[in-house]
This record gives sequence, structure tokens and C-alpha cells, in this order.
Amino acid sequence: MRILGIDPGIAIVGFGFIDKQGSKCVPVQYGCIQTEAHTPEEERLLHVYEGIVQLIDKYKPDAVALEKLFFNRNVTTAMSVSQARGVLVLAAAQRNLPISEYTPMQIKQAMVGYGKAEKKQVQEMTRMFLKLQAIPKPDDVADALAVAICHAHSYTLNTKLNEVLRS
Amino acid sequence: MRILGIDPGIAIVGFGFIDKQGSKCVPVQYGCIQTEAHTPEEERLLHVYEGIVQLIDKYKPDAVALEKLFFNRNVTTAMSVSQARGVLVLAAAQRNLPISEYTPMQIKQAMVGYGKAEKKQVQEMTRMFLKLQAIPKPDDVADALAVAICHAHSYTLNTKLNEVLRS
Repeated sequence: MRILGIDPGIAIVGFGFIDKQGSKCVPVQYGCIQTEAHTPEEERLLHVYEGIVQLIDKYKPDAVALEKLFFNRNVTTAMSVSQARGVLVLAAAQRNLPISEYTPMQIKQAMVGYGKAEKKQVQEMTRMFLKLQAIPKPDDVADALAVAICHAHSYTLNTKLNEVLRS
Repeated sequence: MRILGIDPGIAIVGFGFIDKQGSKCVPVQYGCIQTEAHTPEEERLLHVYEGIVQLIDKYKPDAVALEKLFFNRNVTTAMSVSQARGVLVLAAAQRNLPISEYTPMQIKQAMVGYGKAEKKQVQEMTRMFLKLQAIPKPDDVADALAVAICHAHSYTLNTKLNEVLRS
């Protein structure tokens, strides 16, 4: 099963494709879509949308996982990122891909086993889990890979749970 | 010139197409795109996107005008509406339509001549301006028509200003 993890944003969208092979996860492709500051919002949204569409059509994931957005203070940032999230979700929905959301706490729990782990710990676990030489940069890419791995774990757990419930 | 006014939302998207004919505005089509509560967010976004795409392709506007979103308190609502706004802006950007934004104060100023006018006054002016028998319902439709008229006024003013500056 191939999973696309996405860290939504308007300036930088982190993405990471991984293949879940049994209990292992293998990185396929990862990076980020970047948009230029000081360009009209509609151009940035179009760029984000076209970028993710190209990636989805090239790497053909079976599922998409996103980090759930949380904003306490800056509503303007929240609205800007949410607009980008909207076009990313649209791209996945147009291809009938199942979309899962995970809170930062769920991702930390899945990666480090502790819901209040440090960002650095999550990144290091991501690196080790995917057998990468270095933590992918910028952070958005590492975050995207982490949410993809989180989905892979959660998928395994749910499958096992269903097997137990059926038996 | 045909203008599409949009009042973005996730449950209800108000839309109004008007034709600017000299100093007059004539209503072409108006209504709303509605999505079902309790359906997955991605389905709602897809529905909003496909709805506006169909309308744009049918009524072929030359420009799109949106009300600028303001949220002071409820960040969750702000994020949800912003996602919908993202896919609406995307649909316009994909067709190379110029997109203009107006604050509620600009709309009130354009419609009533007073930036702190009551919502009801704006709706009544919208009705009179378009020679409608009743104020369109729900409010989202009236708001969409108001922002379209606001853009028509603003377009006229800008054109006149440019003529003066050139002469």
C-alpha cells in the first residue's frame, strides 16, 4: 500500500510517499511544493493544486494522510493554510483517495510512543524508520513523512483489530 | 461585463451572476450551492468545487468578486470556510478569471454609502438595484449579489479614474 503524507501550507507544502511493506515503510519520494511570496493568492493556490495533482498522478498513492491543523492565535495564518488544505483535499477527493487526518499528538504517539514528544524526536524517529541518512529538510517534508508513517501504523493496528473482532 | 459574486461557505455557498450594462446591473442567475451536514469534508469540498465549475462554465463570467472573510473568534469555522474558499478561488484561477475581494465595510459603503450600514439595508439596496420583487433568500445569496454589485461600482469608478488620469 502506498501512502501520501501531506503537511499543508501556502508557502510550503511538504509531501512524502511511502510504501508500506508488511511492518516496514519504504520511502518512495518526498519533497515540497513551494510558492512564491508576494504573488497573488489565487496563483499560489493554483500552483499548490497543480503540484499535488502531478505528484498524485505520477506516484499513484492508495491513501492520503494529513496532519490536522491547529491554530490558537493567528486566524489569518489559519485561514491562509486552510485555503491550501482545501485544494489539497480536493485533489485527493477528485481521485477517490481515502483521506485520513491525525492530530499532532497522535503522530507523536505513533512515532515516539509519547504524545508530548519533542518535534526533534519525531523527526529522528522518521529518519530511522525510513533508513534515511539525514532528517529531510525543510521540516515540512519530515512532517509529511511522519504523518504517512503514522497512517501506516494506524492502518496495521486497525487491520489487526478487525481480524481479532472477526475471529 | 458579467460578474460572479460569491459568498463562500462550506454548508452554503451563495452565488450571483450579474451583467453590468453601463451604470445598470441586471441579474442573470443567482442561488446557492448547498452541502449536507454530516458528510465527509472532502465530499463537501468536491461538491462545492464541482458546483461552481458547472456554474462558471454555464454562465461564463468575466470577473469574480468575493467577500473578504473576517473571523475574530471561531477559528474552527474560519478554517472550514477557508477550505471552501480555497476550492472556489481555485476554480476561478483555473479559468484565468480576475478575482477581487471586498471587505464587508467596502460592500456597505458601495451599496448604502455608509460603511456601518445594517445588513438589512444592504439587502434592500441589492433588491432595489437589481429590480427584484423580494430580497433573495437565504442571506448568502443576497450577500453574493451585493459583492457582485460592489465590484461593478468599483470597476466603473476605476475606469473613470483612469480616464481622468489619462486625459
